[in-house]
Amino acid sequence: MGTALLTDRYELTMLDAAIGSGTHDRECVFEVFTRRLPSSRRYGVVAGTGRLLSLIEEFRFGDAELGWLRDNAVVRPETVDWLADYSFTGSISGYREGELFFAGSPILVIDGSFAEAVLLETLTLSVLNYDSAVASAAARMVSAASGRPLVEMGSRRTGERSAVAAARAAFIAGFIATSNLEAGRSWGIPTMGTAAHSFTLLHDSEEAAFQAQVDALGPATTLLVDTNDIASGVELAVRVAGTALGAVRIDSGDLPVQVAAVRAQLDSLGATGTRITVTNDLDEYTIASLRAAPVDSYGVGTSLVTGSGHPASGMVYKLVSHRDSAGNWVNVEKKSAGKATVGGRKFPVRSLSNGVAVAETIYVDSAPDANSSERTLLADLVTAGTADQRYIGAAGTALARIHHASAINELPDDAFRLSRGEPVIPTDYRRGIT
Amino acid sequence: MGTALLTDRYELTMLDAAIGSGTHDRECVFEVFTRRLPSSRRYGVVAGTGRLLSLIEEFRFGDAELGWLRDNAVVRPETVDWLADYSFTGSISGYREGELFFAGSPILVIDGSFAEAVLLETLTLSVLNYDSAVASAAARMVSAASGRPLVEMGSRRTGERSAVAAARAAFIAGFIATSNLEAGRSWGIPTMGTAAHSFTLLHDSEEAAFQAQVDALGPATTLLVDTNDIASGVELAVRVAGTALGAVRIDSGDLPVQVAAVRAQLDSLGATGTRITVTNDLDEYTIASLRAAPVDSYGVGTSLVTGSGHPASGMVYKLVSHRDSAGNWVNVEKKSAGKATVGGRKFPVRSLSNGVAVAETIYVDSAPDANSSERTLLADLVTAGTADQRYIGAAGTALARIHHASAINELPDDAFRLSRGEPVIPTDYRRGIT
Repeated sequence: MGTALLTDRYELTMLDAAIGSGTHDRECVFEVFTRRLPSSRRYGVVAGTGRLLSLIEEFRFGDAELGWLRDNAVVRPETVDWLADYSFTGSISGYREGELFFAGSPILVIDGSFAEAVLLETLTLSVLNYDSAVASAAARMVSAASGRPLVEMGSRRTGERSAVAAARAAFIAGFIATSNLEAGRSWGIPTMGTAAHSFTLLHDSEEAAFQAQVDALGPATTLLVDTNDIASGVELAVRVAGTALGAVRIDSGDLPVQVAAVRAQLDSLGATGTRITVTNDLDEYTIASLRAAPVDSYGVGTSLVTGSGHPASGMVYKLVSHRDSAGNWVNVEKKSAGKATVGGRKFPVRSLSNGVAVAETIYVDSAPDANSSERTLLADLVTAGTADQRYIGAAGTALARIHHASAINELPDDAFRLSRGEPVIPTDYRRGIT
Repeated sequence: MGTALLTDRYELTMLDAAIGSGTHDRECVFEVFTRRLPSSRRYGVVAGTGRLLSLIEEFRFGDAELGWLRDNAVVRPETVDWLADYSFTGSISGYREGELFFAGSPILVIDGSFAEAVLLETLTLSVLNYDSAVASAAARMVSAASGRPLVEMGSRRTGERSAVAAARAAFIAGFIATSNLEAGRSWGIPTMGTAAHSFTLLHDSEEAAFQAQVDALGPATTLLVDTNDIASGVELAVRVAGTALGAVRIDSGDLPVQVAAVRAQLDSLGATGTRITVTNDLDEYTIASLRAAPVDSYGVGTSLVTGSGHPASGMVYKLVSHRDSAGNWVNVEKKSAGKATVGGRKFPVRSLSNGVAVAETIYVDSAPDANSSERTLLADLVTAGTADQRYIGAAGTALARIHHASAINELPDDAFRLSRGEPVIPTDYRRGIT
């Protein structure tokens, strides 16, 4: 199945009507942005871009799609014919994947005819909204963990394909691995995992289960010690695996207290090198609360893949400029109450002072001159229909992770407070003198 | 791409170790349930079952998957060979899709060898958790709308494939249509949609845009009237389309006030049959707040596809019974703090009094005798590896919608209060005399 019907019906009816009125081939600029960050957030993290570029390449109307549109009279026959030849031939620039965003940041700019560009609205927003929601939550968890490694384990708490995207978004924001195998295969992300409670319960005793696991996976494995009593589980784990046991995992209980007790017990048993990993419904706040506890790594699920309270990023896809019937560019904006937009093509830069971000400066209509205190934020992603392959696939995912690490390093310290607050830098619009 | 790698790595490492210890072919019973409903909720709605049955049929390890597992040494070579022959040959019973669930309801019961059944954990939970979260939110919106039709429009606010599942889950819970075209094609759900603000902004005037839309789609279309001033938009819409205009859509502003004003204006213009549809960030609470306003239909997006505050359902997949080395059945349960489970195979019924639900009664270990005041909740979904085709595809989706309408009709009136509260019926466990 292709991606062309992952689309709201109104995009096709708009196309249909625009073909009728002769406006469908007007050159247009659409932009993707969020009007505001979620209330508690000081910055957001762009993710999904690399996935989106591949999905746009697959955005074609094949026989199955065309037949369905025709049979259901979604659009007129001449529009079905137009769709048969469709592929996106325009250009897309945007924030690099892994980049930070703030209110109004134009994270994607789509140049193309109205017809070509309007069709990509839903797919673009689905990908960027979800993936950015996960990456934005993940980045907060990474900073709350203060350098301790985090593993994404939330596949079971989001749709089965979103799970793969979530693993990828978390990796870009600094998680080190995922439990999701398809994310390993598709995106080159390291995968981790050893055993669930069912493995212990399957065996005639906890000891038999631990022995089976150590026999198969070696003593460096991670044993899950809370199926019954944790202290007994830890004692048994070291007895079976020896002091070379890799790690124990704790998935329940009052973690700060529990973790300290387990650390002391492991040390007293001589398993001083055995690590402790915790996985009990963590979010950025509980991770921060464990800073003083001797945790070695975190596994995070539900809160991560649901954006930790903000499961959608609020991104919208808006027409900001187009050529009119005389061929002149016209800036456009809607005036809807509470949802007004800013017309005109944007040229965003991150304003820096001594290497620290101080503002998201968005020039409207004309680009600023190159300037060492302003980092340009738009990169060419698709040129005349062809995507820059550097941003795609496993290599693109790895590149996004590197870019994120560099971009977040520019933020002032205030960005990393977990409490509710304003965006850590303001968004300033600047209009050229025209 | 198949579905076999939409799986957490630990399922394969458990399989690997169980093959090593000779426990992999022990007969097992796994159950899917949620420990508690989200705090504000009085009932939940099962969704995803029909999708899951198809995804389980596609759960095979092909050359690409096997090669990746081998190359990455996820499991030992003999386990890779075992996976090459895998298909699920066990049996699955469960709550009918569209059925209601409460704390502890065993919505899916998987019978099979440990090896066969453990592999389905992640896929099963991904599907049931997400789809049920959406259906549970959707059902509340349907009751808040008091009979007015609701359309699902949230594709852009969730992952691109989750969007299709969300449209389906909302339809099962009583929504009448979706904006998502793939949901129309895959699941036979009616699709709706006409135009966005970009269509108005593309044209040289709002009048030209309305005229283009009416020319293409006829006067029975829905015109979006809030790109500029709503009163001017409504006046123009009726002038262009005539009093046979199908509907106007309002996507911004203070809806109760706005809607009443638009209704009065439409009536004064003679457009007494023109309907009003609203689409401005609705959830069950804002829908309920519009009960007194002359709204004709609602379009719902973000809050629906993100489960209205509860984006994951909390479903877990737990081993409850298995045969031991002597071939005897052993009930098992974990004792982890706050996460203890109830061992033993469950036989759930909905206890009714005069046709009204009074309890979720869960018999443990043995089924009750047939009883007119207890509706049996488990249906045979998969028998010896073969799914009941009635529950699959578009026909299965339609059947689930019918079943939901019937099941929800059994709930006491208290179920439909939107305020926070306890589950509307208690869950009672009953153990047979053994």
